[in-house]
Amino acid sequence: MTDDWSSALLTDRYELTMLQGALRSGTAHRKTVFEMFARRLPDARRYGVVGGPGRFLDALERFRFPTPVLDFLSDARVVDEPTLEWLAGYRFTGDVWGYGEGECYFPGSPILVVESTFAEAVLLETIALSIYNHDSAIASAASRMVTAAGGRPLIEMGSRRAHEAAAVAAARAAYIAGFATSSNLEAGRRYGVPTAGTAAHAFVLLHDSERHAFQTQLDALGVGTTLLVDTFDVERAVLTSLELAGPRLGGVRLDSGDLAITASRVRKILDEHGATETRIVVTGDLDEHAIQALAVAPVDGYGVGTALVTGSGAPTASLVYKLVARARETGADAPLEPVAKRSVGKPSKGGRKWGYRRLDGQGVAGGEVVYDYAPQETRDLRPLLRHLVSGGEVIGREPLDTARERHTAAVTELPDTAQQMSRGEPAIPTHFEQRSAM
Amino acid sequence: MTDDWSSALLTDRYELTMLQGALRSGTAHRKTVFEMFARRLPDARRYGVVGGPGRFLDALERFRFPTPVLDFLSDARVVDEPTLEWLAGYRFTGDVWGYGEGECYFPGSPILVVESTFAEAVLLETIALSIYNHDSAIASAASRMVTAAGGRPLIEMGSRRAHEAAAVAAARAAYIAGFATSSNLEAGRRYGVPTAGTAAHAFVLLHDSERHAFQTQLDALGVGTTLLVDTFDVERAVLTSLELAGPRLGGVRLDSGDLAITASRVRKILDEHGATETRIVVTGDLDEHAIQALAVAPVDGYGVGTALVTGSGAPTASLVYKLVARARETGADAPLEPVAKRSVGKPSKGGRKWGYRRLDGQGVAGGEVVYDYAPQETRDLRPLLRHLVSGGEVIGREPLDTARERHTAAVTELPDTAQQMSRGEPAIPTHFEQRSAM
Repeated sequence: MTDDWSSALLTDRYELTMLQGALRSGTAHRKTVFEMFARRLPDARRYGVVGGPGRFLDALERFRFPTPVLDFLSDARVVDEPTLEWLAGYRFTGDVWGYGEGECYFPGSPILVVESTFAEAVLLETIALSIYNHDSAIASAASRMVTAAGGRPLIEMGSRRAHEAAAVAAARAAYIAGFATSSNLEAGRRYGVPTAGTAAHAFVLLHDSERHAFQTQLDALGVGTTLLVDTFDVERAVLTSLELAGPRLGGVRLDSGDLAITASRVRKILDEHGATETRIVVTGDLDEHAIQALAVAPVDGYGVGTALVTGSGAPTASLVYKLVARARETGADAPLEPVAKRSVGKPSKGGRKWGYRRLDGQGVAGGEVVYDYAPQETRDLRPLLRHLVSGGEVIGREPLDTARERHTAAVTELPDTAQQMSRGEPAIPTHFEQRSAM
Repeated sequence: MTDDWSSALLTDRYELTMLQGALRSGTAHRKTVFEMFARRLPDARRYGVVGGPGRFLDALERFRFPTPVLDFLSDARVVDEPTLEWLAGYRFTGDVWGYGEGECYFPGSPILVVESTFAEAVLLETIALSIYNHDSAIASAASRMVTAAGGRPLIEMGSRRAHEAAAVAAARAAYIAGFATSSNLEAGRRYGVPTAGTAAHAFVLLHDSERHAFQTQLDALGVGTTLLVDTFDVERAVLTSLELAGPRLGGVRLDSGDLAITASRVRKILDEHGATETRIVVTGDLDEHAIQALAVAPVDGYGVGTALVTGSGAPTASLVYKLVARARETGADAPLEPVAKRSVGKPSKGGRKWGYRRLDGQGVAGGEVVYDYAPQETRDLRPLLRHLVSGGEVIGREPLDTARERHTAAVTELPDTAQQMSRGEPAIPTHFEQRSAM
């Protein structure tokens, strides 16, 4: 997407027709608070990982209604003339707070808090949820893979199994969660994610022989490259690699078969030929469980594709964006009142929220505390909300590596149960602290 | 994405480094055939649905390396100077054949056939797979939902649970597979997908009362609108709706609770008040099974979100793009030879393929026939490959409704077993017809 792109139509039609209704009834400019949260963690995970704040801030700044967009809305009769006039001048002027990107979250964590008029805030619902639901799903899955890899580097290589634009966001989210590199070039260009890659079977098959292909790759990319050795016979290919590259060969990649057994055999051959520093990279439908199962195998890195970009069983974080408070009158001073629907099975808690993580004396997280008031801050309460947008101005931008470091710290702080790959309860419980029953 | 956007970096790094190697060894300009196919259907489905050809042709035309893209590749040292020079002039000049959009496919169907030099064809791997894998996953899930709905209209409303750009493609794919409308406005603007929507709980909660909200919506959108009636008490909300709108109310939406029981109660109230034409639309985590379970309930339409955009358990179609033939020398006349890797568990069949559907005397499909030669065409063989790109020129564009009609015809042609929601074998078997053992 280029810089002049408007994000405004990446939106459900009803956001605009609700705006039309509210403009007509005079409720559009009532002050409101919308909150994004998860009712539960996907797939019985131990924690979720916030992905999306950086991309959301970009989308917020591009949320405008230029003439071509207004023309479509007019031609398609989506909204009436007064609504089009209001949209022409749209610019978000409110405040946004949110959990930092890479932070862990739990059921009920107020991941994003948007305070503005109904008209301004309701329009952001779809785009905010699209970005957070996708990026958080990927970051949450990626974090478990990083844990399972136990310090060995992970390459993200799932672009081909995801929508082409989602793939770029997935590479970014995986990097935040601790992946070392991505195969996706646009993620490198747009976000500075380090890129990496080896070669495909097609490259071997193109050439007159495997030897011909290996020699070509070594000539073109140097002895530090990684050769793909499973097109025909793995052991023979490894011997050919060593013959051509010598013991300084960078790496070999295995993409099929029993990876643990094959890696052991390959390691033995490499070591016998003095190639003790040559790395073994494995790929091929790996997920966190397959990665963990390879912990004792002589593997130096993992390439992960499909499981990463599909959220490893949970392709969406299922976050929701709900109205939790609104004024009964228009005006900045009108008091906010909590509101909540009572739909069967989908209850929500009214009122603006403040999220904190409670730490014990050793700095280990013991609980997520969600207040319906701004609490007195104490040393054992780590505040989780950052001020992202102030009076419409984006103030919460940060480098991608800041999010990556935040994630490492947030996971380290959790109790050991967070590292379990099994399905189960959240690693810490969520407590709702209410000043008054509402 | 705007029109000046280049799609070239939506690509894995190794496509470019393989190009660099092949340019150096002189194999880059060997004629090749790459083929896209599925080893198996996702999730033990009965058939897959081809989604993506239209978007792929758009991406192919935008696959260029303008200066900013080359600058990135140079600065990040992805490829060397000779490769950058070659990329600067990149334009696909080969031929592409593919299954029509909306067509059904089976394991081994040659969904896309790309014939060109290695250099030109290998670069398209990632973008082609990203588009087809996403769009086919969504179309395949959507088609089952359309079957389950048995003629009742389906609204696609999953944008908030998918990456914001994937959401637009998902709306398009769902429409091809038979959905009536989408909530996604960009899908309306870009592809002409009809858009629709109702209202959210936030709209009800914003107002002073449910009655206030309903009156506002009726004033703004007219009596034909659909009111959301489950924010507090469904039956009271329906009575309020009828009081305000009378029996000509367009519809009511239910988003929670036991939808079958609630719909029956609501239908009874509506009918008792003469609102026999008022439609009941149900939403709330519906998938094809939930839709089918509501077949006997008095429901007039379904809104489907999460399950649609996540492919209902199969978020990627797992299609692969493999080199199946290549010349041993450069030049247009050099003969193509079939190639195939022998990796454990991932075999592929070498050689260019031609796909046909065999029909019986009643026009019912009996098998997918994949030839490794162009067969004599007969009346019982329906050819499945369309010529999409000829000498680099896109010739296969078609209106979205053509794909939609093709899909209806293709599903109708399948045997009854295709309509089963249970997991199982493909509805028809795939036969590989080989002229010679290769």
